[in-house]
Amino acid sequence: MDWKSEISAARNRIKGYAQVTPVLDSHALGLGYPVEMKLEHLQHTGSFKARGAFNTLLSTDVPKAGVVAASGGNHGAAAAYAARALGHPAKIFVPELAGPSKIALIERIGADLSVVPGEYANALIMAQEHEETSGAMQIHAYDAPATVAGQGTCFAEWDAQGLQADTVLVAVGGGGLIAGALAWFQGARKVVAVEPETSCALNAALRAGEPVDVSVSGIAANALGARRIGSICYGLAQGMASVLVPDEAIANAQKTLWQAHRILVEPAGAAALAALACGAYQPEEGEKVAVLVCGGNIAPDPLQG
Amino acid sequence: MDWKSEISAARNRIKGYAQVTPVLDSHALGLGYPVEMKLEHLQHTGSFKARGAFNTLLSTDVPKAGVVAASGGNHGAAAAYAARALGHPAKIFVPELAGPSKIALIERIGADLSVVPGEYANALIMAQEHEETSGAMQIHAYDAPATVAGQGTCFAEWDAQGLQADTVLVAVGGGGLIAGALAWFQGARKVVAVEPETSCALNAALRAGEPVDVSVSGIAANALGARRIGSICYGLAQGMASVLVPDEAIANAQKTLWQAHRILVEPAGAAALAALACGAYQPEEGEKVAVLVCGGNIAPDPLQG
Repeated sequence: MDWKSEISAARNRIKGYAQVTPVLDSHALGLGYPVEMKLEHLQHTGSFKARGAFNTLLSTDVPKAGVVAASGGNHGAAAAYAARALGHPAKIFVPELAGPSKIALIERIGADLSVVPGEYANALIMAQEHEETSGAMQIHAYDAPATVAGQGTCFAEWDAQGLQADTVLVAVGGGGLIAGALAWFQGARKVVAVEPETSCALNAALRAGEPVDVSVSGIAANALGARRIGSICYGLAQGMASVLVPDEAIANAQKTLWQAHRILVEPAGAAALAALACGAYQPEEGEKVAVLVCGGNIAPDPLQG
Repeated sequence: MDWKSEISAARNRIKGYAQVTPVLDSHALGLGYPVEMKLEHLQHTGSFKARGAFNTLLSTDVPKAGVVAASGGNHGAAAAYAARALGHPAKIFVPELAGPSKIALIERIGADLSVVPGEYANALIMAQEHEETSGAMQIHAYDAPATVAGQGTCFAEWDAQGLQADTVLVAVGGGGLIAGALAWFQGARKVVAVEPETSCALNAALRAGEPVDVSVSGIAANALGARRIGSICYGLAQGMASVLVPDEAIANAQKTLWQAHRILVEPAGAAALAALACGAYQPEEGEKVAVLVCGGNIAPDPLQG
């Protein structure tokens, strides 16, 4: 696939629908070196997921039955938001572990929401059944070309905003976002995959030599807790740098972002920074680094809404 | 005073010390028109105040006794931060109503902090006494040329970032920030002063024809609760647009920023947006508007730190 062209086309397609998100060059993170950050948690519905959702819906004929999505919460909110913006009905399945903040967010958008016992994989099964019986189209959370191309626009946009970094750190759940990074940069910048020790589907796949099931838990599970890495991501990720961070480092990085910049994010949104702060990834002398701040849907909601 | 030159000089002076803060062009605020925002709450210590503090300290010989400041919280944190960055001791007086979040912030920076009973004016008296007895230099929170020129850099920077707006809405406390806006724009863009009904020193002065004492209360009092408008601000503000917003509108705008963009701010940081949302300021057809998001030190602290 000609990913560069796909992502450029996606960027034109979602213009005016997805938010152009700001960038910040921070010297205040206590690392002894600056970090470029893209504040993608300011995106509609609080995460990059709106990009893939809009790209998917804008690049196909949506059936009258509308849209269905399974989600740990962020993708469901994005799918519901994009569907509403484009006038389609949306049915969203989330696992219980999505948590009250994300569930309230999806309800506020106005989608038809079902909360499924257990983890993300269970919600995905329900979404697939709904797709078959209703004729609704599924927006996959991470493992579909239109989703990956949509998430890739985040990095195309960052390049256009003057990204300087040699190395870009990205948190990984099912792999849609980092697949977008790899597909866009094509080796022009080093991409580092950051996963919690407690939810590490990509790292496990790279070690096993194939996608394998992992168990998921920990503080970022409702955003990064995919049981198995997406096949598109796995295909693009061969030979890439992959690091793991403990939950405690993620919580600390969350606190650092808040204390240094009044940037309040959910744990997944702080995971990439955590890799720098805890030393899981150590830049070489002079290596310029960037962190994608990917999600802000923290629980409990500080303003209950 | 040649404010344009002063502000340009200040901008060079504080480069590398103050944070360049990002801008966001939002279509998601539910107003039916877009709003450009500058996210100045991402500044060091969570408000624009770091600009004035750095400009003040970098444009003078700081005495060995260091720095003293009186503050509702945000200016004290900024003065303490700038002093620490430049190697000076800092003594900060805050009123009790600064609240635990801002007090904890100043303590974390490491300044010598005194909490004074009552409101801001009482802390100012203590700071003036300390200045006289210790030989420390005072950084005034709003009514000094170096402070105003420093705050003005926020708008010079915004222009350089491509600000499009015809009209810029700015929240007003003692008037340092809006004085910086008026001093920089010089009529090239319309500046609208937004104050809470419960703390409206500028509005009262404009109505009385001179600065007058007002009582201060309400949800933004620890940031916007100046008893009397600064004389520099008053001099620049003649004939300007001044609107008042109820506390409830401020709380609603705070919620809107969080729900639409995961931007979490203190009440003062949402006051300017509140003027648009509640109709206190109604743009004309085609009038492009911008909002300065000025402070993020919300209480209670969502991450206790």
